[in-house]
Amino acid sequence: MITTDICIIGAGPVGLFAVFEAGLLKMRCHLIDVLPQVGGQLSEIYPHKPIYDIPGYPTIRAQELIDNQMKQIEPFNPTFTLGERVEGLERQEDGSYVVVSSEGTRIHCQVVVIAGGLGCFEPRKPELANLVKYERKGVDYMVRNPETYRDKKIIIAGGGDSALDWTIYLADIAKEVTLIHRSDSFRGAPDSAEKVYHLAQKGAINLLLSHNLADVHGSDSLSHVIAVNKQKEEVKMEADYFIPLFGLTPKLGPIADWGLNIDKSAIVVNTVDYSTNIERIYAIGDINTYPGKLKLILCGYHEAALMAQSAFKYVYPDQKLSFKYTTVNGINTF
Amino acid sequence: MITTDICIIGAGPVGLFAVFEAGLLKMRCHLIDVLPQVGGQLSEIYPHKPIYDIPGYPTIRAQELIDNQMKQIEPFNPTFTLGERVEGLERQEDGSYVVVSSEGTRIHCQVVVIAGGLGCFEPRKPELANLVKYERKGVDYMVRNPETYRDKKIIIAGGGDSALDWTIYLADIAKEVTLIHRSDSFRGAPDSAEKVYHLAQKGAINLLLSHNLADVHGSDSLSHVIAVNKQKEEVKMEADYFIPLFGLTPKLGPIADWGLNIDKSAIVVNTVDYSTNIERIYAIGDINTYPGKLKLILCGYHEAALMAQSAFKYVYPDQKLSFKYTTVNGINTF
Ligand SMILES: Cc1cc2nc3c(=O)[nH]c(=O)nc-3n(C[C@H](O)[C@H](O)[C@H](O)COP(=O)(O)OP(=O)(O)OC[C@H]3O[C@@H](n4cnc5c(N)ncnc54)[C@H](O)[C@@H]3O)c2cc1C
Ligand SMILES: Cc1cc2nc3c(=O)[nH]c(=O)nc-3n(C[C@H](O)[C@H](O)[C@H](O)COP(=O)(O)OP(=O)(O)OC[C@H]3O[C@@H](n4cnc5c(N)ncnc54)[C@H](O)[C@@H]3O)c2cc1C
Repeated sequence: MITTDICIIGAGPVGLFAVFEAGLLKMRCHLIDVLPQVGGQLSEIYPHKPIYDIPGYPTIRAQELIDNQMKQIEPFNPTFTLGERVEGLERQEDGSYVVVSSEGTRIHCQVVVIAGGLGCFEPRKPELANLVKYERKGVDYMVRNPETYRDKKIIIAGGGDSALDWTIYLADIAKEVTLIHRSDSFRGAPDSAEKVYHLAQKGAINLLLSHNLADVHGSDSLSHVIAVNKQKEEVKMEADYFIPLFGLTPKLGPIADWGLNIDKSAIVVNTVDYSTNIERIYAIGDINTYPGKLKLILCGYHEAALMAQSAFKYVYPDQKLSFKYTTVNGINTF
Repeated sequence: MITTDICIIGAGPVGLFAVFEAGLLKMRCHLIDVLPQVGGQLSEIYPHKPIYDIPGYPTIRAQELIDNQMKQIEPFNPTFTLGERVEGLERQEDGSYVVVSSEGTRIHCQVVVIAGGLGCFEPRKPELANLVKYERKGVDYMVRNPETYRDKKIIIAGGGDSALDWTIYLADIAKEVTLIHRSDSFRGAPDSAEKVYHLAQKGAINLLLSHNLADVHGSDSLSHVIAVNKQKEEVKMEADYFIPLFGLTPKLGPIADWGLNIDKSAIVVNTVDYSTNIERIYAIGDINTYPGKLKLILCGYHEAALMAQSAFKYVYPDQKLSFKYTTVNGINTF
């Protein structure tokens, strides 16, 4: 059994910053995340993209922000369980909780902070008979490291921002990029669509509009993708990699069954301290909702700060909290 | 007459970030501040101190954060009126406002954002007959640039964090540092008090506890500070600089008369969009209050983001706002 003050579900940017705010108040944290690495959406979906709206950073790559946050919380020695999904929650007689993972890991804590972002997200997959056979053998549902695709033949499918952005980005890196989309217009940002049309015009990418995916083929690994047009004519294309980018389905998963107030897959909180309807359980970051909510990283940071002030009473019931500036007090580790 | 979309009163970190969030939504900003420079408390009170709780910065000096924020908003070309105090507000028939400064500058805008921090803050001054005579001639109420005091004889007075912190900091820089405090214990952080006692013990500073200030003397500029102990015995000390650090009195000033809901010198807002009780007037950062409020820079950033989403409807009444990520859309200037 792992013992800690606060168990944080989700090691995205918001969960990580909660460690810092808790640490300032001398509360220890254990984080648990189903992904094999920390960083949430930033490390999993767009590690190489620049973010422009982190206050004080005119621009910073997503992974660099996460690296900096890891350095910022180092003094507080958080502990991690990675690659395990939180499934159970057991309330103890004294009001504390035991959080239980898919692998049976048990974490005893005074306070539970759900920083689960979009939930355990899973890619939406096209329904193609042979697709699953080539997963990780040429079929990827996310771009993790663009370098994987250097000088390769790539086929991307989709019509949203991810499909457009990665088509533009990989056009420079891959040997050949084909974008397949079933409609003749894009859902993604008009700007990006503009850029894609332009790349197609000058022959830098292949653009197949109004084509549906039909199947994938290969032997040990993927070799071909087949699409059909409205007249049911087949196009068979060679491919080293096939990347269908149809978005992620956010799955709240077992957390949905804990008795929390849920509204459209998000956990309802109040804005005084970002607590939920259940005592000692808070929800911060993308996973919560309240009037005015914006799913922005910088908003999650604020939520983490107010949460920590409120959680203090459960960890130190006999102590009075006094508010101090870090410039005055520094970081006192424990 | 200056014309803009949003007039921001106060160019502290929160007012500056509001320019960014407004800029993303194509709203122009004009900032006005009574101080001669941007940066609010950070540039005025503690430019050289490190801050530890800016998310993604394990540590950053206050002035560096402001410099970075100025760089971050550069693409949106904000305009500034510095060294002027906002005094008047005139509502126009169409609902827009004209903000009027102490020097008669007039700014026409659709939305007013008050990011006035502690208000127009003024130092609390000890009541000494000759004090005012030596202001800027040896008497300073704030440490702006510690280098001013290199190899000088300094007398600091006070018992709070500022007095303790600057005593510790200047002990390394000045020729001689004396700290005078009227009581025999400090109000500031126990840690810092500990350090001050330690410096006094090893002779690195002079510590005069239980002494009251009596007067200051000099000719063209300051030369002596006089204190008395409980037995009314005088101590006359040579000084190049005398720095009484008795805190700042936050003065809301004329803003208090605009009909806004005020609670303990702070403007009451709701947390949906940080709007006040008057339409088109928002209050963000240290100057506002709501249940759970923390006077932290990172909280002001969040407030600025939600404010901008809400202010949009006054600047673009006919347009629908669509929420976009900066990584996807970049910074589109206008
Ligand atoms: C392409 C793209 C661009 C973006 N651009 C920006 C931008 O420019 N600016 C901005 O502010 N935001 C941007 N965002 C949004 C930003 O990424 C999110 O707001 C942010 O990631 C939310 O952080 P979080 O910590 O709340 O959640 P997440 O980053 O989603 O992390 C949540 C973590 O919780 C884990 N988890 C969930 N449920 C469980 C469970 N049951 N057990 C174990 N682990 C669990 C997940 O695996 C995940 O790692 C962008 C998002 C995308 C996809
Ligand atoms: C010593 C010290 C250490 C601190 N350490 C930290 C820390 O570690 N972390 C943290 O998050 N916060 C810290 N803070 C608090 C932080 O500085 C404030 O939260 C922050 O400055 C608030 O920003 P703001 O933009 O709301 O207001 P301010 O920085 O106060 O700026 C407001 C501006 O408005 C101007 N103004 C006001 N009224 C008028 C008017 N009528 N006309 C024209 N101009 C006007 C003022 O001149 C000022 O420049 C510290 C503060 C101090 C004093």
